[in-house]
Amino acid sequence: MFDLDSYLVSKNKRINDALNNILGKNINSGRIIKAMRFSLMAGGKRIRPVLCIAAAEAVGGKTEDVLNAACALEMIHTYSLIHDDLPALDDDDMRRGKPTCHVAFDEATAILAGDALLTLSFQILSSISFKTEKCASKRLDVLHAIAFAAGCNGLIEGQMRDLASEGTLLSIDDLEAMHSLKTGALIEASIYSGAALGGGEKNQIRQLGIYAKNIGLAFQVTDDILNIEGDPKVMGKSVGTDVIRGKNTYPAIVGIKESKAIAKKSINNALQALDGFDNRSDPLRAIACYIIERKR
Amino acid sequence: MFDLDSYLVSKNKRINDALNNILGKNINSGRIIKAMRFSLMAGGKRIRPVLCIAAAEAVGGKTEDVLNAACALEMIHTYSLIHDDLPALDDDDMRRGKPTCHVAFDEATAILAGDALLTLSFQILSSISFKTEKCASKRLDVLHAIAFAAGCNGLIEGQMRDLASEGTLLSIDDLEAMHSLKTGALIEASIYSGAALGGGEKNQIRQLGIYAKNIGLAFQVTDDILNIEGDPKVMGKSVGTDVIRGKNTYPAIVGIKESKAIAKKSINNALQALDGFDNRSDPLRAIACYIIERKR
Repeated sequence: MFDLDSYLVSKNKRINDALNNILGKNINSGRIIKAMRFSLMAGGKRIRPVLCIAAAEAVGGKTEDVLNAACALEMIHTYSLIHDDLPALDDDDMRRGKPTCHVAFDEATAILAGDALLTLSFQILSSISFKTEKCASKRLDVLHAIAFAAGCNGLIEGQMRDLASEGTLLSIDDLEAMHSLKTGALIEASIYSGAALGGGEKNQIRQLGIYAKNIGLAFQVTDDILNIEGDPKVMGKSVGTDVIRGKNTYPAIVGIKESKAIAKKSINNALQALDGFDNRSDPLRAIACYIIERKR
Repeated sequence: MFDLDSYLVSKNKRINDALNNILGKNINSGRIIKAMRFSLMAGGKRIRPVLCIAAAEAVGGKTEDVLNAACALEMIHTYSLIHDDLPALDDDDMRRGKPTCHVAFDEATAILAGDALLTLSFQILSSISFKTEKCASKRLDVLHAIAFAAGCNGLIEGQMRDLASEGTLLSIDDLEAMHSLKTGALIEASIYSGAALGGGEKNQIRQLGIYAKNIGLAFQVTDDILNIEGDPKVMGKSVGTDVIRGKNTYPAIVGIKESKAIAKKSINNALQALDGFDNRSDPLRAIACYIIERKR
């Protein structure tokens, strides 16, 4: 029986060590690095880097093949949270049980720390210290996929739509499109990076793409549910905020029961996509189940 | 006799066409692209992309070899201006004779448009539509150099120091270090990218690095002088703002006369670094002179 808890503990340690190592390599030890470290090491769940590693393993790759890519993905995720939390955007004071970056430092530093994490992610993805000597064209391709997912046809467009939609009721299709951009794209890129750098074949990469799309959706629906049913102490952030802000969420549009059904169905689709894989994809299977069962 | 004006007109047209082409390729035609286009096409001098192209030509390369890199550099420059102009940073309302991005749109859109331009620059640098089929490892190396220059050991650290130093008097060494980070690093990366992608040899790249370091310094000193002596109508922005904000500038620390002498000496050093190059480096020579003679 696969033990997800110890898997996550061990992979999180690898990821955190690697992130610390990357930050420690900077000549610069000033305020900007402090702010970057503050947000990067604030106890995130590391879902994107773990997915990247698990996807690599599912196709026979190793953690060290993709560790830099995994770190880059977490940096991009963290930068997006820092900017999302800014007063001009969601204006959140708390994140993961700690003050947000602009509260702990100041707004200018938070803007620049986000910029610096985004930039550092691409520096890492193009670094010669990238462990494996996979051919450079594959690394360029992965970098391109990540940039596309993070940019104005992915994550950033999702943030724009999220901001624009506050207070107006979206259709379920528009909501799904928004989340697919804001959350789904980077999750899909995480799995693509792991699968491609891990040496996956075309067909494997396609199946993992289906897995990714489905867990991305389930992840967001569950986030919405937790914002209603979650325990703020466990979550490390306020709940009920989506309702107060008039945010478009699955529970608001289709109700809690139907939301849970959507999440469940997506996870089943994700598991089905892994049918052709051997037990090296057990971590991916366990993560899929964890995504809808998690409490934070 | 080399005609810089028509050179700049012709290269600017190539650059602007390429930028328009890149923006036009996005599926997304919403508010975020409008904001990106607004700032990207607001009449910048295109110094970084022109330097990239001129460096490529100096080593025998062609404009099309480096056009995508040139565009990426201009996107990074523009993103840094958008974020620098934000209320939490320099709080500037006007730029290049037009309202700044957060004034023309809103703060959230300006933050995300900057993020999107930065991300798009790396997407372009890793794009398969990158014209020449230079080996991928060279392209990764150039992307890495640009990310390093733009990041927390370059441009962003320069912005941090600039913000931290307002109202306190820096030594001339600290001022030079700050500018070398904030402005110099990306100018050097522009010339490095052009030289490397244009097929330059090690020795040529080294000499062009000396050229770059010197014009970077001269560029900043001249910017400081223009903030005192410039004509706001020609510049498209207010002058005298550095003094009002207590900014550290060359004129404030060493006086106008000595500032002009520093700029002049740097340009002479830059020209000297080109001694071993043939007339294909005439554009670089002319740009060096233009940098201290410009009125905006």
